[in-house]
Amino acid sequence: MAGALLRSALRLKPRLRPAGAERRRYSQRSEGLERAVAAFRSVSGDEGVSLGEAVREQHGRDESVHRCRPPDVVVFPRCVEEVSALAKICHEHQLPIIPFGTGTGLEGGVGALKGGVCFSLRNMDQVLDLHQEDFDVTVEPGVTRKALNSYLRDTGLWFPVDPGADASLCGMASTSASGTNAVRYGTMRENVLNLEVVLADGTIIHTAGRGRRPRKTSAGYNLTNLFVGSEGTLGILTKATLRLYGIPESMVSAVCSFPSVQAAVDSTVQVLQAGVPIARIEFLDDVMIGACNSFNSLSYPVTPTLFLEFHGSSKSLEEQVSITEEITRDNGGSDFAWAEDEETRAKLWKARHDAWYASLALRPGCKAYSTDVCVPLSRLPQIIVETKEDLIRNNLTGPIAGHVGDGNFHCIMVLDPNDPDEVQRVHEFTERLARRALAMDGTCTGEHGVGLGKRALLREELGPMAMEVMQGLKATLDPKNLMNPGKVL
Amino acid sequence: MAGALLRSALRLKPRLRPAGAERRRYSQRSEGLERAVAAFRSVSGDEGVSLGEAVREQHGRDESVHRCRPPDVVVFPRCVEEVSALAKICHEHQLPIIPFGTGTGLEGGVGALKGGVCFSLRNMDQVLDLHQEDFDVTVEPGVTRKALNSYLRDTGLWFPVDPGADASLCGMASTSASGTNAVRYGTMRENVLNLEVVLADGTIIHTAGRGRRPRKTSAGYNLTNLFVGSEGTLGILTKATLRLYGIPESMVSAVCSFPSVQAAVDSTVQVLQAGVPIARIEFLDDVMIGACNSFNSLSYPVTPTLFLEFHGSSKSLEEQVSITEEITRDNGGSDFAWAEDEETRAKLWKARHDAWYASLALRPGCKAYSTDVCVPLSRLPQIIVETKEDLIRNNLTGPIAGHVGDGNFHCIMVLDPNDPDEVQRVHEFTERLARRALAMDGTCTGEHGVGLGKRALLREELGPMAMEVMQGLKATLDPKNLMNPGKVL
Repeated sequence: MAGALLRSALRLKPRLRPAGAERRRYSQRSEGLERAVAAFRSVSGDEGVSLGEAVREQHGRDESVHRCRPPDVVVFPRCVEEVSALAKICHEHQLPIIPFGTGTGLEGGVGALKGGVCFSLRNMDQVLDLHQEDFDVTVEPGVTRKALNSYLRDTGLWFPVDPGADASLCGMASTSASGTNAVRYGTMRENVLNLEVVLADGTIIHTAGRGRRPRKTSAGYNLTNLFVGSEGTLGILTKATLRLYGIPESMVSAVCSFPSVQAAVDSTVQVLQAGVPIARIEFLDDVMIGACNSFNSLSYPVTPTLFLEFHGSSKSLEEQVSITEEITRDNGGSDFAWAEDEETRAKLWKARHDAWYASLALRPGCKAYSTDVCVPLSRLPQIIVETKEDLIRNNLTGPIAGHVGDGNFHCIMVLDPNDPDEVQRVHEFTERLARRALAMDGTCTGEHGVGLGKRALLREELGPMAMEVMQGLKATLDPKNLMNPGKVL
Repeated sequence: MAGALLRSALRLKPRLRPAGAERRRYSQRSEGLERAVAAFRSVSGDEGVSLGEAVREQHGRDESVHRCRPPDVVVFPRCVEEVSALAKICHEHQLPIIPFGTGTGLEGGVGALKGGVCFSLRNMDQVLDLHQEDFDVTVEPGVTRKALNSYLRDTGLWFPVDPGADASLCGMASTSASGTNAVRYGTMRENVLNLEVVLADGTIIHTAGRGRRPRKTSAGYNLTNLFVGSEGTLGILTKATLRLYGIPESMVSAVCSFPSVQAAVDSTVQVLQAGVPIARIEFLDDVMIGACNSFNSLSYPVTPTLFLEFHGSSKSLEEQVSITEEITRDNGGSDFAWAEDEETRAKLWKARHDAWYASLALRPGCKAYSTDVCVPLSRLPQIIVETKEDLIRNNLTGPIAGHVGDGNFHCIMVLDPNDPDEVQRVHEFTERLARRALAMDGTCTGEHGVGLGKRALLREELGPMAMEVMQGLKATLDPKNLMNPGKVL
């Protein structure tokens, strides 16, 4: 449950050693672990295996408020064969396997709930096969989004999926990440062509066949999209083949203020209906705009606001901007300002990308937790209005920023971890918000994943039968429940 | 194997009754079948159950050359509860279940290889929930592509995926269909938001939770895309929630002739690289253009040709066309002609859509089989040139048409079913073509599916480990192997 974990999240001590009746089992496991560590060292060398407390703690948490759950050991494989050999050892000794990219997740996905072995993939950081004419590239799991785009700098191509953080691309595949420009370029689901995966028993598979990269296929079950979004619970992603896009000739950004949430969302729907191929359309509520103004010394009107971005040729941009400006004006939007130059655009998007820190700055010393519901577009005004009323009624700080073109928005909950009453109120609020989204045909998570905190909500969302199917798939691929146990299901 | 089935396909007799040692087993099954039919009638009434030979034969074949394999009985359920009740009866009596949409498939997917019960879904033909502002709609499995677009006529919305045939939308989901405008709007994989599925034991699940329709989600495993492309082997699709798009303000079509395959494909890559949001970009080789000229009394130059379509505002279309014209000219393209008026556009696309019949008209009395490989864009010139040489060397008729923006093309093989030597040469040719695609990082099927004919090729394409995972998934969801047995795996 989001809240139960939120509560536990705020205790920051590492996992305690078991006591009483569990001691003997622990001691058996401890011996198994020792033998496994020796075997890991024979595969990866001393430098590829770490038992150090600092290293373990660093790998026991992500950027969420979920508390640190360090693994027993961290391994640093350098190639898929090594990942496979290490996984076989874990399989033999029944040790949990937790894949680790950059630790920038937001749902506690890397916590070692049952101890075990963290597979840090940071040493596998090569861009392997770039096919410019085919608009595809294959990367190792340690390659981050920014590293890939920096590699692509002189090719005229880019990988657009942008969750904000400089996450590893295989980590992004794991959580089915998306972000600000999914409305134009899709999410990881639409942009992964093939995956190399090491299963719990060390078997290496290629979801679309080794080295294959057709842009479309009807060849058998869609294994690629079974692993995208599986949050490390079905296998370790060791290679991803991704779709690339031509860098647009020009980009224009714009900002526009609205009298109401409804007016901002109506504009969004109409822009999409008009076929404007908008690249980003981000909503910020009055509280978030206020926070951004303070944090970045800006002076946007403190009212519901859209930040927009257009990609295309200069000529098509003119038209896109002019249609959008007309639509926003018809909906009572004002102060429509657009910018073509890099500097003004960068300033505008910095304000949006700093939303997390701007929110935290509202209450220094506090921590933040981001909700992640997604609903059909037409339900956005109602859910945002109700959610804002809920925040006020419960005296909570939760500025709102959202990928409104997809119906996905975040309340960045700023809370004092030492105030149990507030922690409880945030817990109850996030559950109410998720249920509000479910009642509007939506989902409790648009892009962050289920991780630790949303397992009970997932069950409500999908119903017992679909959950049973998912459990069946998990049991088929990982019968010993070694892959990232305690997550998703 | 494509060829083995191709050979068997041309025997057109219905399935023979078993003889000898199998007779007793057959007689036991026959009794089970009789009891099942009585139970079907109690669920669906007499009019909902057919044992008539004509009806069974009509449901035992699709539009491919695979020979008719009629089911033992055809049922016509009217709602999901009925589908579930009928499936439970099949499950109890261990009878195969074969879902049937419109029978427009091209890989023999509806043949009842082991007899059993065909579930014709034609009576479930309602458009259920249209949400205009949310760009989504939910349809029953009997709703066809054209029926949906006709329903949407006055809404300003449309469903663009267009495989040519007026297939049912759930049938299209089953084979992961796409077609001419996938380059702009994606395939069924990208356009199905949720599915209602009846599993082999009659369990009803909703892949994204009942009634849910967020545009994106990270909530658990992607069950939706596990069933998309599963060709009826994992469950019966009884409802699909689909993404819709705004009808573009304007459409322009164009046609352009090239001195070589390479020049046509180079133009395609450059158009995509330039970020032109092209809606259709179809390649026809010289033989196909010749066939189209004869069939439709046209006079296009008999040389590699691109048919193109642009969607957008009038202003953006001007730019798209002008960029494309420049690119084609730089690649030696000539006779670039574009048309905005409905009539000229319709004439142009009629020529493309008649490709199948134009090919058949090359050799009256013959039958046709379409190959369906898909390779990375840059490999297209080589594979097309080698394939054309192969056709000539083996004295075969196989005009080529392709969705070149996706790297997917079809050889429409026209053959005399009574010439065993030619049948054998076509068999060997299609296998060589598929292996040529596999050697170029491609797939044996871009959009038609595996069905009966490509099972051995699928194994070559994916490798034994990925196949084992697929078999594991199948065994989990359908442990008795009742769902469309003998297909895909």
